[in-house]
Amino acid sequence: MRTLDVALGARSYPIHVGAGLLGDASLILPHLKQRKVAVVTNTTVAPLYLARLRGSLEAAGVKVIDIVLPDGEEHKNWGTLNLVFDALLEHRCERGTTLIALGGGVVGDMTGFAAATYQRGAPFIQMPTTLLAQVDSSVGGKTAINHPRGKNMIGAFYQPRAVIADMETLRTLPKRELQAGLAEVIKHGAIRDAAFFSWLESNIEALLEGNAEALSHAVVRSCEIKAAVVAIDEREEGPRAQLNFGHTFGHAIETGFGYGTWLHGEAVALGMVMAADLSARLGMIMPADADRLTRLIARAGLPVEIKGMSADRFMELMSHDKKAQEGKLRFVLLEDIGSATVRADVSPAMLAETLRLAA
Amino acid sequence: MRTLDVALGARSYPIHVGAGLLGDASLILPHLKQRKVAVVTNTTVAPLYLARLRGSLEAAGVKVIDIVLPDGEEHKNWGTLNLVFDALLEHRCERGTTLIALGGGVVGDMTGFAAATYQRGAPFIQMPTTLLAQVDSSVGGKTAINHPRGKNMIGAFYQPRAVIADMETLRTLPKRELQAGLAEVIKHGAIRDAAFFSWLESNIEALLEGNAEALSHAVVRSCEIKAAVVAIDEREEGPRAQLNFGHTFGHAIETGFGYGTWLHGEAVALGMVMAADLSARLGMIMPADADRLTRLIARAGLPVEIKGMSADRFMELMSHDKKAQEGKLRFVLLEDIGSATVRADVSPAMLAETLRLAA
Repeated sequence: MRTLDVALGARSYPIHVGAGLLGDASLILPHLKQRKVAVVTNTTVAPLYLARLRGSLEAAGVKVIDIVLPDGEEHKNWGTLNLVFDALLEHRCERGTTLIALGGGVVGDMTGFAAATYQRGAPFIQMPTTLLAQVDSSVGGKTAINHPRGKNMIGAFYQPRAVIADMETLRTLPKRELQAGLAEVIKHGAIRDAAFFSWLESNIEALLEGNAEALSHAVVRSCEIKAAVVAIDEREEGPRAQLNFGHTFGHAIETGFGYGTWLHGEAVALGMVMAADLSARLGMIMPADADRLTRLIARAGLPVEIKGMSADRFMELMSHDKKAQEGKLRFVLLEDIGSATVRADVSPAMLAETLRLAA
Repeated sequence: MRTLDVALGARSYPIHVGAGLLGDASLILPHLKQRKVAVVTNTTVAPLYLARLRGSLEAAGVKVIDIVLPDGEEHKNWGTLNLVFDALLEHRCERGTTLIALGGGVVGDMTGFAAATYQRGAPFIQMPTTLLAQVDSSVGGKTAINHPRGKNMIGAFYQPRAVIADMETLRTLPKRELQAGLAEVIKHGAIRDAAFFSWLESNIEALLEGNAEALSHAVVRSCEIKAAVVAIDEREEGPRAQLNFGHTFGHAIETGFGYGTWLHGEAVALGMVMAADLSARLGMIMPADADRLTRLIARAGLPVEIKGMSADRFMELMSHDKKAQEGKLRFVLLEDIGSATVRADVSPAMLAETLRLAA
């Protein structure tokens, strides 16, 4: 097991990465205020892992309530969130009851937001079971639900007490979901770590085959990169925005085609291709660097082109982006493989060139 | 104008109390990130005060979006909150757009929660127009909406950037609402300030008549008391709970009879009568002290008795109280006029005696 730290003063917390952690209640117990937890999971994950987690907690004398949600991004909304509140109230959970998110990014984001707002704030723990959640969404305290007009529009910055990533859960992860998770892994290399990016180029096949050692390295390095960025800018007032590389285009794709059609990682992958294209058009990187990123994304089995979304529709959807300031869109762009920056001065004409790729 | 400070480090903010402040944009401008605000108000307050606020802001070059909600505690729910989100998104408000709550406690609580969760957190300003909001709910950062199973069950601790209380708005406040606000004023004296309690006994008629000087003193002293408690315990992990004096019983009354039947202040008034009764039964105060509180509440035109709610129903509703810990109900009780404490050891038999008053 490897343990990292997200350094946020009084809100600091550990990230544990290792095999078989779901069965180790000793990682959870130090973070409980009461011997009662509510495990929030979904219909896909529950049959696979709920019993193991429940067993280890009950053996330690902890009462376990489970809340099983429908699976899928299209359920990341108020209606589903309210199922969590209903169950918490029905089981008389108090503000000292810890919520545990057992699942992927949707479960983690919703459980985190439920914890942030239940009785004005209950503690919660992330137990991510997908690669995407392990390398990205479970770390950093971004919680949210979607709004019909935009992804993650309603949410809170609210840090978990711990992140516990059991690498064994990746064995049951569908290949498409593994690939989607690799998009965020590639992102971390692209924006912050050229050596890691090169390592990914050398190890992409091992990762796709589910090689445990390779996956473990990818998760640990991704968490290290993300934790370092979050530690210097918890609430995304500055440098944290670079973690949104590919996300301005990606969110527009997700919203435009309807939640659940594209996986988040797939949309981000294509968003990175578009952002790299824009970076090259602006002369920030060489076309060869953009091609290098596109090639790695393609080798990961992720989409590198899109058809059927007009430039106007893209603009309409992107105008709701949370990074927008004073009506100006802000894009995370590459300065090099391994280095990103935020630009608010992209001309409409230049942007139109990139958007034409999708029309 | 009097200005107090809520001392919360980086989240500190001023409370301005005075006449005619709605027309003074200079109190708002220092807190704006953009020259754009969204004023959230309701159908009762908008015709009275929206134009004045809008006029002063527009004269200062600030673009004003208004969001007018239905009036009443029964609308303090997700559906109404979503009207705020819809409007913010429709008008392309960003996370740098400041929300202004213009209204009473319901508008303030909902606007604060909308600000806490819109794009994971936008700035907001409280402009309370009722006595209850001026003396209590606008100060301290508690924001929430109701859930069918309990009041304020979904919410966040999220501090405003400023509280601006224009005393002139009380001139149009219905008498019943003025009385409801006095319940929280009396509460502040009862739990923290015997001298202020005595002053209230001497000035209750002046307050009921709308005497500007008396009301101003009541608002300033209440804000001072509340700000001092919030400064030492922002997230209600300890002493802040004393501000909930009367609220455990009161919330049960509000929920039990349906939101909107009793005004919040009315329910708190009766809750204080019940909490004082319980305090006297436990030998913590003399029956004469409980009577003294009951008498002042009655002189304020507030309810001191209730019929038609069984002890079982009270217990059922109170079991969801946010102050509950490990299944134990916690009551804020009086040690003296001017001093309160939290007790978790009230015996069911003793509680039943007090609840019998309501059956």
